[in-house]
Amino acid sequence: MIRPATVDDVPVVLSLVHELARYEREPDAVLATEETLTTALFGDNPRVFCHVAEDADGHVVGFAVWFFNFSTWLGRHGVYLEDLFVRPESRGAGHGRALLTELARIAVANDCGRVEWAVLDWNVDAQAFYSSLGALPMDEWTTWRLTGDALRTLGR
Amino acid sequence: MIRPATVDDVPVVLSLVHELARYEREPDAVLATEETLTTALFGDNPRVFCHVAEDADGHVVGFAVWFFNFSTWLGRHGVYLEDLFVRPESRGAGHGRALLTELARIAVANDCGRVEWAVLDWNVDAQAFYSSLGALPMDEWTTWRLTGDALRTLGR
Repeated sequence: MIRPATVDDVPVVLSLVHELARYEREPDAVLATEETLTTALFGDNPRVFCHVAEDADGHVVGFAVWFFNFSTWLGRHGVYLEDLFVRPESRGAGHGRALLTELARIAVANDCGRVEWAVLDWNVDAQAFYSSLGALPMDEWTTWRLTGDALRTLGR
Repeated sequence: MIRPATVDDVPVVLSLVHELARYEREPDAVLATEETLTTALFGDNPRVFCHVAEDADGHVVGFAVWFFNFSTWLGRHGVYLEDLFVRPESRGAGHGRALLTELARIAVANDCGRVEWAVLDWNVDAQAFYSSLGALPMDEWTTWRLTGDALRTLGR
């Protein structure tokens, strides 16, 4: 069962974010707190959204955090999936596919041209899953990031 | 001179989008129209924004289209630069750097942790420019895209 997250889900979503960071081999990279996630997801006029997957017992076992991106060429918004995670012990039950299906529905309902997300190059299991849905890797592009001191220097 | 685009800039921005598509070797890929850009940039509660660069004569010679993305790990928004383009005949005068500087300022002012954008792997001139600003390529990630029939099938 997929449903939009509520403010009561923030603690379990944050615990899943920590699990995801461990899975992606960056266990200390999570600086988000319940407060920052609550503000971003449930403040005024939010620009980011969260859906959760529940198992048959009503426990949240996965989540998707997403926002609307934009294609200048299409002149249309798209859905960008920032993070998708299903607890390892709950995999194989279709939660990941159900979360992506919900995002595809949101994209179609909002006249979006695309759903996009980033995948670690070593995560071949995820790549096989995404290929099975008809997604394609944008191999000729690399994302660049300005952060930390370089960002503060340029933006001061 | 960098300033936020106004609705009067839409025709010249669209012409620059077409120039960019030719530069990126996809001249027929632009489906955006003045109407779709106007709605996205200047409708109610826009989720995407545009800044333009003017030369000394007040002509628009470059643009940046951007939106707020989100890092689940940081628990903070970021600035995502969807497109940056300066007319070839106006390059070397600092317009591109000025546009990126303005986005860095917007990021810092909005407590964003990052400015990010995608670069074509063959565009080594752009990569050298971005490196000079302290940006780093996220080499271990690839963006995946679900679009067209595959999106409509999953999202119906």
